[in-house]
Amino acid sequence: MENGPNKWGFQGKQELNAAAAITVRGFLNMLMGNINKDDSRPIIPLGHGDPSHFPSFRTTPAAVDAIVDAVGSGKYNCYAPTVGILPARRAIADYLNRDLPYKLLADDVYLTIGCTQAIEIVSAVLSRPGANILLPRPGFPYYEACAASNHLEVRHFDLLPEKGWEVDLDAIETLADENTVAMVIINPGNPCGNVFGYDHLKKVAETARKLGILVIADEAYDNIAFGSTQYVPMRVFGPIVPVLTLGSISKRWIVPGWRLGWLVTSDPNGILRKSGVIDSIIGFLDISADPATFIQAAVPQIIENTKDDFFSKIICILRETADLCYNRIKEIPCITCPKKPEGSMFVMVKLNLSMLDDINDDMEFCLKLAKEESVIILPGIAVGLKNWLRITFAIESSSLEEGLARVKAFCQRHATKQ
Amino acid sequence: MENGPNKWGFQGKQELNAAAAITVRGFLNMLMGNINKDDSRPIIPLGHGDPSHFPSFRTTPAAVDAIVDAVGSGKYNCYAPTVGILPARRAIADYLNRDLPYKLLADDVYLTIGCTQAIEIVSAVLSRPGANILLPRPGFPYYEACAASNHLEVRHFDLLPEKGWEVDLDAIETLADENTVAMVIINPGNPCGNVFGYDHLKKVAETARKLGILVIADEAYDNIAFGSTQYVPMRVFGPIVPVLTLGSISKRWIVPGWRLGWLVTSDPNGILRKSGVIDSIIGFLDISADPATFIQAAVPQIIENTKDDFFSKIICILRETADLCYNRIKEIPCITCPKKPEGSMFVMVKLNLSMLDDINDDMEFCLKLAKEESVIILPGIAVGLKNWLRITFAIESSSLEEGLARVKAFCQRHATKQ
Ligand SMILES: Cc1ncc(COP(=O)(O)O)c(C=O)c1O
Ligand SMILES: Cc1ncc(COP(=O)(O)O)c(C=O)c1O
Repeated sequence: MENGPNKWGFQGKQELNAAAAITVRGFLNMLMGNINKDDSRPIIPLGHGDPSHFPSFRTTPAAVDAIVDAVGSGKYNCYAPTVGILPARRAIADYLNRDLPYKLLADDVYLTIGCTQAIEIVSAVLSRPGANILLPRPGFPYYEACAASNHLEVRHFDLLPEKGWEVDLDAIETLADENTVAMVIINPGNPCGNVFGYDHLKKVAETARKLGILVIADEAYDNIAFGSTQYVPMRVFGPIVPVLTLGSISKRWIVPGWRLGWLVTSDPNGILRKSGVIDSIIGFLDISADPATFIQAAVPQIIENTKDDFFSKIICILRETADLCYNRIKEIPCITCPKKPEGSMFVMVKLNLSMLDDINDDMEFCLKLAKEESVIILPGIAVGLKNWLRITFAIESSSLEEGLARVKAFCQRHATKQ
Repeated sequence: MENGPNKWGFQGKQELNAAAAITVRGFLNMLMGNINKDDSRPIIPLGHGDPSHFPSFRTTPAAVDAIVDAVGSGKYNCYAPTVGILPARRAIADYLNRDLPYKLLADDVYLTIGCTQAIEIVSAVLSRPGANILLPRPGFPYYEACAASNHLEVRHFDLLPEKGWEVDLDAIETLADENTVAMVIINPGNPCGNVFGYDHLKKVAETARKLGILVIADEAYDNIAFGSTQYVPMRVFGPIVPVLTLGSISKRWIVPGWRLGWLVTSDPNGILRKSGVIDSIIGFLDISADPATFIQAAVPQIIENTKDDFFSKIICILRETADLCYNRIKEIPCITCPKKPEGSMFVMVKLNLSMLDDINDDMEFCLKLAKEESVIILPGIAVGLKNWLRITFAIESSSLEEGLARVKAFCQRHATKQ
């Protein structure tokens, strides 16, 4: 071809490739690449939080019917308002108002593409030159990815395994300065499977108030609690400190692929409005992607028509698989679990490397486990805690049993010879 | 409440509010705010490109059935791979391969949340300090919004009304420099309703090649052409210059609320791969929102099962409403149409302000028109051309007739007295 350019004037953006490398999906894809194709046993996925493929975790027919009705009506083929359609906003406000000492309005609810997009929004809205955000360690690495792409400095506070994964509140006070904008609380917890009690959450709220920062409450696993600690939504403390609640139907309805979530402002004292945060949220939504309109339209019926027995069945299964997981882990000497999981779909366990012969860290453990046993487990490094592991128990109990048996065999095979 | 902070450490982000103010939706919302609530006549929406509410423009039952099947199967409640699910990528590659001198593979197709997210992705991927992008004037302001939020400098080239809205190719050569990364072509055209011919597109490709920039081909209105010029996809010229095709099912299937689009790389010479653009696209997708999985899963069936008579019915209606629109506009002295529309859903017309008494610009025209006649028309300023108007003809012909009759009455009432 004649007249070609001496060189092309465009190129990729290294930054983007780097951000991707730290996601959970990035780690899981890498592990999948290490699976031995000659192993005829089924792969046991203990790495991710999506049990929707398993028959026991199939969503309620009521939710499917709501989608079929909405798309069939022909009324929701149109673009939606950027903040979401009103009936869905109202239904979510009502859903979240249960047990709340003040009332959320439809206007406090913004529909998002899963909790994921809500994280993206808060990161973009709160970023400004020099600002920093306090994130939990271990945590959910999408916060780190979004902070990086918005040039928001990250400061980590620890969740304390010896205190049931409670927030290290003293650390919060030391970390925060006048450029701190917010702290993130994930409850029920990913990756730790803990549930924060009322008193602890109240202390979190009071600490944030004292520091003048807002609380971002990631409640992707709202109501997925099956232990002795009752789940309390952070927004209960809205009168103490402004709270941004991030949530979705992904986990509770087990439909993560439907991509429907929300960002909700709890601002009974009008602080978010005055500070311009609300306007910026609306501004961001004006120029970003929306959830499908008919899925938005299905939300009122999904919430209204889902029977309690669907939720209690799921909770019951998770309680059993969490127990099973905890008990089987106790039988494996080289991993220890500091706290029995009470919520979400995960548990964090510590690797005792001194008991293993030829394994130097969590990443190596997981890579070899994938190769030798066709079991996928997320290395702790992916969630900020080196030489720990995150194990999912939201899978059929027979698969969980089989997967942990393979982990046990793997550990025995690699145990240091005494 | 005691121990409150002296001041809160967070605030909104002015930038975000500004970006929103330039969107088409922003303008339309402003005009809607100017509607006189005492006017009992129906509002005639000639401002936006979403005819899905009108009975004549209802989507094909085949598309709805595909969604119902996908969600009902229970197999697509899961998260999808960040690039999109394989069967959908393959179906779109096949769909776009019709009439192509080389073959796209499934791997060349990335699923996006409408063409909108594809615009967001290319803007993010191509931005680097100092880089600039060439955008058409008039154009689609979402490109400007995305360029702004990615700090990508915008340089405008004109579409020439006297040449049927062809690209001013001489201007392109003058505007481009070593920091230019790409130029955007919207075909069929929004806002002009033009369709570029084969020869002109070939010249565009050759110009881009000479300058070493890539071509971003926005084909949101692909195949929506009903005039004498045949629609040719830009990617036909992929062997000359790398082309990124942006498209969606929004317009052709009239389901903009389903939020399913694509970004497709035409790179038969491997230039995009070598320059890292492909890796950055994948990196961006790894950390951004995805279309709902079951909507992705419906794509093969939507494409496969939609009969040609659905498409030809829609084309036939648009040909008629475009004719009607053109003819009625000819009867209104103060607006002139340089070129009969041949594609998309819009036409650009020029305001002759000297013939109007108390109207100083296009914005004032549209605000008064909304107030006095309950007709919404987009001011040209919203798409970069002051004192022009963008009129949609993708609406029921009876409403179009009524809307343009009101515009005529409005113009007569405001005509300068001679
Ligand atoms: C803590 C946490 N937040 C947010 C999300 C995102 O969830 P979604 O976008 O599916 O609502 C997840 C998903 O795994 C999560 O674990
Ligand atoms: C030129 C152009 N590009 C892109 C889009 C975005 O379309 P969607 O995101 O619905 O596919 C539109 C919508 O109006 C458009 O007119």
